Amino acid sequence: MDDPGDGLGAAPAVIDALRLRVDERLAQLLPSADKPPHRLHRAMRHALLAPGKRMRPLLTLLTARQCGLGDWRALDAACAIEMVHAASLVLDDMPCMDDAAMRRGQPTTHKAFGEDIAMLAAVGLLNQAYATLAGCSELDARTRAALCALVAATVGPNGLIGGQEFDLRDRGSVDDPETIARFNHAKTGVLMEAAVEAGALAARADIRTRLALRGFARHLGDAFQMMDDMIDALSTPEAARKDVRKDEGRTTIVTLFGVKGSRDAVLGHVEKGCAELARARCGADPLAGFARASFAHLVQL
Amino acid sequence: MDDPGDGLGAAPAVIDALRLRVDERLAQLLPSADKPPHRLHRAMRHALLAPGKRMRPLLTLLTARQCGLGDWRALDAACAIEMVHAASLVLDDMPCMDDAAMRRGQPTTHKAFGEDIAMLAAVGLLNQAYATLAGCSELDARTRAALCALVAATVGPNGLIGGQEFDLRDRGSVDDPETIARFNHAKTGVLMEAAVEAGALAARADIRTRLALRGFARHLGDAFQMMDDMIDALSTPEAARKDVRKDEGRTTIVTLFGVKGSRDAVLGHVEKGCAELARARCGADPLAGFARASFAHLVQL
Repeated sequence: MDDPGDGLGAAPAVIDALRLRVDERLAQLLPSADKPPHRLHRAMRHALLAPGKRMRPLLTLLTARQCGLGDWRALDAACAIEMVHAASLVLDDMPCMDDAAMRRGQPTTHKAFGEDIAMLAAVGLLNQAYATLAGCSELDARTRAALCALVAATVGPNGLIGGQEFDLRDRGSVDDPETIARFNHAKTGVLMEAAVEAGALAARADIRTRLALRGFARHLGDAFQMMDDMIDALSTPEAARKDVRKDEGRTTIVTLFGVKGSRDAVLGHVEKGCAELARARCGADPLAGFARASFAHLVQL
Repeated sequence: MDDPGDGLGAAPAVIDALRLRVDERLAQLLPSADKPPHRLHRAMRHALLAPGKRMRPLLTLLTARQCGLGDWRALDAACAIEMVHAASLVLDDMPCMDDAAMRRGQPTTHKAFGEDIAMLAAVGLLNQAYATLAGCSELDARTRAALCALVAATVGPNGLIGGQEFDLRDRGSVDDPETIARFNHAKTGVLMEAAVEAGALAARADIRTRLALRGFARHLGDAFQMMDDMIDALSTPEAARKDVRKDEGRTTIVTLFGVKGSRDAVLGHVEKGCAELARARCGADPLAGFARASFAHLVQL
């Protein structure tokens, strides 16, 4: 695995191995559940270590490898991105937000630990992402600072928290596809883009490669948010491993385009993203393979 | 003001001028209230720009100046520390935490904007602290990464959020002074220490100076938390500009030592802190002057 040019591509076994390494490292990067403050540590571990697809850290790792960075040097950056994601899920699920009961097949963090501890755990996970990036010994100071700036832009008012404000307060009253797409991008797409950008930054990829990767990530993020809306509308809590029908009464891609139209739109974005990758100078076939594989279960919806 | 060795000390007019500059810069560093997402921006500005003593950013600025850093180069680092403080206040005041109605003479952020927006604003302020540090053009990349790491350690489970867990869940059942002091330190002292350390880091002070400054900050933080407990027990909402009697029924310095004993303990810590300063190599009289002045109104309690 040390050679980023090992040609292993994104075969399922390789992805599984990468995911396992991410899971191991995530567990190392959080404080032990045996040490005080116990509740906080347990809540952070509950939220972060529950089985997940790890799509974002895998994107960071695959991007870094494709851009020539070996030896797992982007692993901590990848884990930081997953921490940001987990923090955003804890917050989104809170009673004053989406009020969700299940996430990743287990009780949401506030159901398991109480609202106060869940709120502290969300802040703790976001904070741990910055701790991980700022303290990463594998990367030089310039790259560490750049990664912190990237995450800050991703989380901020033009990113996750801005998208969440729209989702909570405005989405029910908006029905034009363009506005919905813009805020879906802030809610989900920016973190997908950041995941890819983090890999490229860690590998110090040139600007042309980074722009192409950004185009890929943008389409991937759009596809992912659309698939998420489809899962909410069409799946079961058992299959989705989280609450569904949270969007009922709202305009989503499914109400706009129907099931087949939505599926076509998702796959259209995936293919457009893969076309962008062809412009990158890093021979990014494994990334394209991973992207396509990530949406393979779409046909079951 | 450009010359850190200008000998102005910490005369009240100088402190007022520094505070004004901090307030101006804080307003610049947040997104405009006129731009979307409006509610989020307004809530962040509500929480951060309400009139405050700005003790922490003043400590950062005074420390940096004493350590030889001129030209306001620590201003953004100082503002980042105040953002962390404001974020912690918004969270502490939430209904699932201390459930406070007034802060800094105005409604708490969740009272003014709702719980959901307040929670996003708190995350937004913490995040903006990192954005400010990671993107600060006045400091080199190594210092920016070091400041991000400092803030991360300050906020994390061994700092603010750990202290808050104790305060919410354990403090009511604990009555030994040592445990209370340890968690009071995590809840308040760590950010005082970080404020001073940020100034020293920005100025790249030597390790001996930093250790002495840390000793000063530790005593100052202890004094400040004790004074805060005294204000809660003895002041009025009008004078304190926030809810009081939140600690009723708990063991605090006031129940342990009485009013005079508490006042002596606070002033004892201030003087011990100033004695630590004498060990610093930076001729830190203005810092000592500022520290003493900050506790001058203690006699009114």
